[in-house]
Amino acid sequence: MYDPLFSTPAMIDVLSDRNFLRHMLAYEAALALALEEHKIIPFGVGKAIASIDAESLDLDTLAKQAFAGGNICIPFVRMLAAHVADVDSAAAAYVHWGATSQDVIDTSLILQMRSALILIEQDLELTCEGISRLIRTYRQMVMPGRTWLQQGPPVTLGLKLATWLDTLLRHQERLAQTKTRSIALQFGGAVGTLAALGDNGSAVAHTLGGLLDLEVPALPWHTQRDRIGELATTFGLLTGTLGKIARDVSLLMQTEVDEFMEPAAAGRGGSSTMPHKRNPVYSAVILAASVRVPGLVSTILSAMVQEHERSLGGWQAEWETLTEIVRLTAGALAAVKEIAVGATVNSDALRRNLDLLGGVAMAEAVSFEVARKLGKAEAHKILETVSQRAIHDGVSMQVALAQELSLREYFSLEDLERMLTPANYLGSTNDFIENVLSRQAMQAARGHHAKH
Amino acid sequence: MYDPLFSTPAMIDVLSDRNFLRHMLAYEAALALALEEHKIIPFGVGKAIASIDAESLDLDTLAKQAFAGGNICIPFVRMLAAHVADVDSAAAAYVHWGATSQDVIDTSLILQMRSALILIEQDLELTCEGISRLIRTYRQMVMPGRTWLQQGPPVTLGLKLATWLDTLLRHQERLAQTKTRSIALQFGGAVGTLAALGDNGSAVAHTLGGLLDLEVPALPWHTQRDRIGELATTFGLLTGTLGKIARDVSLLMQTEVDEFMEPAAAGRGGSSTMPHKRNPVYSAVILAASVRVPGLVSTILSAMVQEHERSLGGWQAEWETLTEIVRLTAGALAAVKEIAVGATVNSDALRRNLDLLGGVAMAEAVSFEVARKLGKAEAHKILETVSQRAIHDGVSMQVALAQELSLREYFSLEDLERMLTPANYLGSTNDFIENVLSRQAMQAARGHHAKH
Amino acid sequence: MYDPLFSTPAMIDVLSDRNFLRHMLAYEAALALALEEHKIIPFGVGKAIASIDAESLDLDTLAKQAFAGGNICIPFVRMLAAHVADVDSAAAAYVHWGATSQDVIDTSLILQMRSALILIEQDLELTCEGISRLIRTYRQMVMPGRTWLQQGPPVTLGLKLATWLDTLLRHQERLAQTKTRSIALQFGGAVGTLAALGDNGSAVAHTLGGLLDLEVPALPWHTQRDRIGELATTFGLLTGTLGKIARDVSLLMQTEVDEFMEPAAAGRGGSSTMPHKRNPVYSAVILAASVRVPGLVSTILSAMVQEHERSLGGWQAEWETLTEIVRLTAGALAAVKEIAVGATVNSDALRRNLDLLGGVAMAEAVSFEVARKLGKAEAHKILETVSQRAIHDGVSMQVALAQELSLREYFSLEDLERMLTPANYLGSTNDFIENVLSRQAMQAARGHHAKH
Amino acid sequence: MYDPLFSTPAMIDVLSDRNFLRHMLAYEAALALALEEHKIIPFGVGKAIASIDAESLDLDTLAKQAFAGGNICIPFVRMLAAHVADVDSAAAAYVHWGATSQDVIDTSLILQMRSALILIEQDLELTCEGISRLIRTYRQMVMPGRTWLQQGPPVTLGLKLATWLDTLLRHQERLAQTKTRSIALQFGGAVGTLAALGDNGSAVAHTLGGLLDLEVPALPWHTQRDRIGELATTFGLLTGTLGKIARDVSLLMQTEVDEFMEPAAAGRGGSSTMPHKRNPVYSAVILAASVRVPGLVSTILSAMVQEHERSLGGWQAEWETLTEIVRLTAGALAAVKEIAVGATVNSDALRRNLDLLGGVAMAEAVSFEVARKLGKAEAHKILETVSQRAIHDGVSMQVALAQELSLREYFSLEDLERMLTPANYLGSTNDFIENVLSRQAMQAARGHHAKH
Repeated sequence: MYDPLFSTPAMIDVLSDRNFLRHMLAYEAALALALEEHKIIPFGVGKAIASIDAESLDLDTLAKQAFAGGNICIPFVRMLAAHVADVDSAAAAYVHWGATSQDVIDTSLILQMRSALILIEQDLELTCEGISRLIRTYRQMVMPGRTWLQQGPPVTLGLKLATWLDTLLRHQERLAQTKTRSIALQFGGAVGTLAALGDNGSAVAHTLGGLLDLEVPALPWHTQRDRIGELATTFGLLTGTLGKIARDVSLLMQTEVDEFMEPAAAGRGGSSTMPHKRNPVYSAVILAASVRVPGLVSTILSAMVQEHERSLGGWQAEWETLTEIVRLTAGALAAVKEIAVGATVNSDALRRNLDLLGGVAMAEAVSFEVARKLGKAEAHKILETVSQRAIHDGVSMQVALAQELSLREYFSLEDLERMLTPANYLGSTNDFIENVLSRQAMQAARGHHAKH
Repeated sequence: MYDPLFSTPAMIDVLSDRNFLRHMLAYEAALALALEEHKIIPFGVGKAIASIDAESLDLDTLAKQAFAGGNICIPFVRMLAAHVADVDSAAAAYVHWGATSQDVIDTSLILQMRSALILIEQDLELTCEGISRLIRTYRQMVMPGRTWLQQGPPVTLGLKLATWLDTLLRHQERLAQTKTRSIALQFGGAVGTLAALGDNGSAVAHTLGGLLDLEVPALPWHTQRDRIGELATTFGLLTGTLGKIARDVSLLMQTEVDEFMEPAAAGRGGSSTMPHKRNPVYSAVILAASVRVPGLVSTILSAMVQEHERSLGGWQAEWETLTEIVRLTAGALAAVKEIAVGATVNSDALRRNLDLLGGVAMAEAVSFEVARKLGKAEAHKILETVSQRAIHDGVSMQVALAQELSLREYFSLEDLERMLTPANYLGSTNDFIENVLSRQAMQAARGHHAKH
Repeated sequence: MYDPLFSTPAMIDVLSDRNFLRHMLAYEAALALALEEHKIIPFGVGKAIASIDAESLDLDTLAKQAFAGGNICIPFVRMLAAHVADVDSAAAAYVHWGATSQDVIDTSLILQMRSALILIEQDLELTCEGISRLIRTYRQMVMPGRTWLQQGPPVTLGLKLATWLDTLLRHQERLAQTKTRSIALQFGGAVGTLAALGDNGSAVAHTLGGLLDLEVPALPWHTQRDRIGELATTFGLLTGTLGKIARDVSLLMQTEVDEFMEPAAAGRGGSSTMPHKRNPVYSAVILAASVRVPGLVSTILSAMVQEHERSLGGWQAEWETLTEIVRLTAGALAAVKEIAVGATVNSDALRRNLDLLGGVAMAEAVSFEVARKLGKAEAHKILETVSQRAIHDGVSMQVALAQELSLREYFSLEDLERMLTPANYLGSTNDFIENVLSRQAMQAARGHHAKH
Repeated sequence: MYDPLFSTPAMIDVLSDRNFLRHMLAYEAALALALEEHKIIPFGVGKAIASIDAESLDLDTLAKQAFAGGNICIPFVRMLAAHVADVDSAAAAYVHWGATSQDVIDTSLILQMRSALILIEQDLELTCEGISRLIRTYRQMVMPGRTWLQQGPPVTLGLKLATWLDTLLRHQERLAQTKTRSIALQFGGAVGTLAALGDNGSAVAHTLGGLLDLEVPALPWHTQRDRIGELATTFGLLTGTLGKIARDVSLLMQTEVDEFMEPAAAGRGGSSTMPHKRNPVYSAVILAASVRVPGLVSTILSAMVQEHERSLGGWQAEWETLTEIVRLTAGALAAVKEIAVGATVNSDALRRNLDLLGGVAMAEAVSFEVARKLGKAEAHKILETVSQRAIHDGVSMQVALAQELSLREYFSLEDLERMLTPANYLGSTNDFIENVLSRQAMQAARGHHAKH
């Protein structure tokens, strides 16, 4: 019921039970073909398996029968063998030859993860492009910096967006490295020796890996779950960053702040009872994911403590948890992408909020210039006093500073105005933005290069 | 796909999307009836709503439309109003009058939880009864106590079972208290003031609560989620205990221990490749739940930090998480119930394992008697030496002790034999078992009393 | 280094290593006295132990020696025996008679928890009183209700505070129930049979429990950790509520909102570089706790899955985790108490923010009155249009409504003004506040009664 | 009190408060030197700061004063300035120029993490070497494979160890990648613009980075916490693997299994009451870490959702949590290293356990050979029947198979013996071991190369 809200249609399909079944079927077909190639089973079994339509297998029955053996593969192999027997009665005896349930289940999960990574990488790239465009538009737009949810010295909207982008670029790197390490074949037989294949185990494994286009690892990884763990943590880290972005967006969208808005769409963000509302629905989806994923990641890490050559509880705990992490990450990322592509900015509000404290938020800027004349301690003291006076008397910082006798000999009114202008107090903002945009361009080019 | 493995049919039904829809429908009908009673809306609306069949509402459409508004209730109300309009065109305008989406969603969740608690309490009672029976059968059966996974002084199987039961009895108490606090109506309107009902808010709330048979709380609890949190933690604590039981069972079922077995059933626990296997499938299901639930509980606790009068992310994070906790708890409990009802015991193995160390595990028993003669430090030292000698020489503890000159003047061979007999070193075991059985009887009687 | 920031001096003392040592010493003394009373060991041992000054035991040495045996009690008993030997050489042999390390460590932790609960309950009561006072002051003060971080219909500050208080009152109840269940003696010997005490186990346990003023449970709970688990979850739930309060406070304290402020104090909330800042330091402490505690609670739940009669890893995982939960909860509660006692309110800002949308947030109020004339659907549609027109044209809702021809025949300008006045749209607010205040008064009276 | 049990002396020192203070001091000195080089502050300040002895700063006072400002840096800067003033009164005014508290705190944490990574990498390398040696010794030693805690077909001890090693080699890779990404300078001033340094921000940052030997990132990362998050998850994944190893060791060390033992050491693993015990203390420490770290990682992930330019709660939640993760990881790794270096093997027990089922665990081996004659389904059925008969009649599998009429025409008694010999049913075990040893050799060589 909640899938369409918290994920994307493409990811829901990748993670669907039906798709898992397709991967199990593909595994069994490829295994048979590999065994045939090495003359371990008679020719024709792979073809018979490949002829079975995944849609013809009854998921409900499999799910119910999974209860007895503790996993879905046992009834699946039985059902598959029955279907194969209809096609080729001799072939049925060779279905699943030499493999164990976990081989099929783990590899099918890995195949889902491979597809999932492609979807995530695509949306991440679109998100980075979208944010780059926003940065180019808003790099000079001054807005209040905010620390501890209080206004501080100014930043630009471009800089804020650049901090988002910089992080997402690192996530691209992490995803690529995780893919290299985690997307690997599982094939070990009952206890990870491939004993049923005699001397041919390694050779069959390589043929099987080739057919499924999967890396063949040094050895089976039945109860060494760092590959699964790393998928979980890499997605978990990404969702953390997405949550940070949504936290910013939702705070900026508050009625009282009103600076930066999720894209508007007919019917989106409405309320069942309040006609005037436009709720930050994307942010809610992202924040929900960022609340949920950390606990799920901790489950995957806890589940790594598995027993001997097949675990009791740990392995089973992974199944729904890893896919849930991916499902939520995809939904959160898609929502950030929509924001990156369609956000709107209220420049009036930015200006209004920048003026809200009558220049008091520029106290630091003045403080540093005063410090050059009178020392830092004295400067901090003067500015604290003047800030409080401005607030107490309800006058602007400029007025309060002009009234401060101790500063008169050092600063003219023009000096004060210059110092109090937010756009003059942006330091290395432009350098920082430039650094990130260059990196994004470089990484995007590398990505395109890799594809072509 | 994994539902039948990790939960029970009854709980799957209680937590189904369709059942949620039924509760939402019941809420809207009861709300309309309550408003009619207080003459806020015209007579007949409640009847019109009640005439709608929950099965006639299209879940897929609702799920997809939930995306726009961020919750399922907005499209539900729209769809419901359309159905009502077919029945009574005037009535449609009064559907959902005065309520907000969260009122309907929260209360529907609470109604699911009420049903879930009933199922859990039933299975918990059957589990307690089953364990009581096992205790009565095996209270005297001596077995190795084990600390740090090493054999120590003996216990009885009855005592081990009694420690399980004692804890489960406390969980019964916790569930009852949580029910009292958590099963409560949500009804507050947009921001928790019931403003749309003018002066009638409290009165309508009480009528509505009466119709749904739910307690009416002091005020709405939109963003005060301790009720949801307590449901999660109470189920989480229970699952922790179930995991402890499964950990014990799975260790006792090891090939090398072989003392206490999950009930056998045709086809259960088989392997897809190893013909001789009888896997502890119940334990796997329970242990998987106990790996998964802690992270889910932490999600619910994290989600408690909600904003103002409706949250952004926190509330949405609860939906699937709480039901997942309940789903897994139910499955784990049902599996423990099966074990409690059908476990088998291998008394030969118990005896064999008790002899495994040739009496060395009784070192403590002897040590205490020696300490009465020679002081505790001296005794500990002697027994450490003798234990090591027995292990090193491959002789029984009795032989090694008989060879120890320093003890000869104090203990005869008969003394040694008496001291080394596990059944003589059980201390307060019987008292403890009695305490727990009495408490179970008392609590069961109170439960029956409450029902009749 | 972070203790004084994240906790309170009193709780730091309760949870200190030194205090733990005091409890271990008290346990050993009481155990000896109990054994003496039952004539199991010679008279005088308890007195000798009681004469040892906890400050004279070297913590660093104990900590280092804990490495070898895996717990602090083994070297403690050795060190204690050496000290006792100096006082009474015969007594040393009877130190720790019949107990196991876990008996001493678990009970000492429970004694810390008993003290911790007292501190928490005291601060919670003061917090409830403080909030009650704030409610009485601000019950009528109208402010914007906020859902999804967007302004909605009005609430009063008193109502917002009442939702905090209502929840805290439930936490008082939970703490009391948890105390009853969790604060219990641990005494079982090596495997929970008290075998070393022959038939006297239960009797000694009751004497020991009496001396330590602790309930004697039905049986030892070495590896049944629901008592520890419930302490963790009860504190975890409380911290979740405290986090919700801090989230509200920090949002209300934003520069752009500025409605409700943490108490000011000289030097608090200053910045190392921004002279004008007044940071919500209390909120930061509370929110940090609410981020940290959920993961710690999940650890305690995971740790419940313990093996046989003594666990390997699970038990050890509890030690620092439970005290960390308590430490953080105490700090967060103390910070909320300070807010409850000393918060300041900016009524100008409340009014200003209420006017921010020019009455658009009152759309719901008008909508319900229009619905009585034109039906709900039509009303929602009109109000949506008028709201958008008001926003678009930059006019007040009152002006926009006055221009709406379809409403002219139904509402006069006076009607519009009445409907748009926030104070007229508060529904059951007063009832709700009254409910909570009554409950608080009742619960406080019961608390005082219990104490006298 | 628990530090020496759960961590290593070297790591305790790296993570100590005092060492943190040293890093803060080093940051301020380097910052002053960098500012001097760019002529922003007068010459001599850096030297004055560098002359201050970190040991002369009073930690208790700092900790207490941290309460007011919410972080330790504010009082630290004040105290440091006072000390500098004693040395050079003019210099004091330039302490901390242009930086914000978070710059100093974040970078000091990063410097701790850099040292921590070195320690972890060293111990990990020693662990890998130790396991390699064990593999070489035990590569042929046959032992029962175990799935679901039930005996299955055989493996060798060398293979089991190789699966541990294979995973640890991937962790080496992850640690290296995380180091590259996460060990970076933090320097941004109040809101991440370095505004106080005008146009010189980037230049000063590079000089500062050079002095501290830290990479200068594209821009400050105040509220983008993926670097911190990745440190947490990388350590978390490692601890998961360590937990898996300890789970295996502790199961193998059970009294009833007794195959593979933690290194013995005088006084280690003793019990306070049971003289004969040798507890798996290393495993307990590792398993405790693997129970605790997942929850702590989830905290770090939750804390990533930080607000604007400085967070409220999220940042503060990281401080103690990240160091706790590292502390526990180091302790767990050191314990695995001790096992890798000093484990002992009981080859008698391995053989005894292998015979425990009288060859029934070899059912799969026979099944595959039978399947070649009679098809897989028929084979599975026959072997299931024969296995059960062997168990039921208490005869060996060889006897039961010999009695099976349906097999007589296909297999001689010699065939049966060959098929039932575990050492003949190891499949690709040797290939797998070889793969891992090669990879370890390669990675070790690369590591040595990198160092020289």
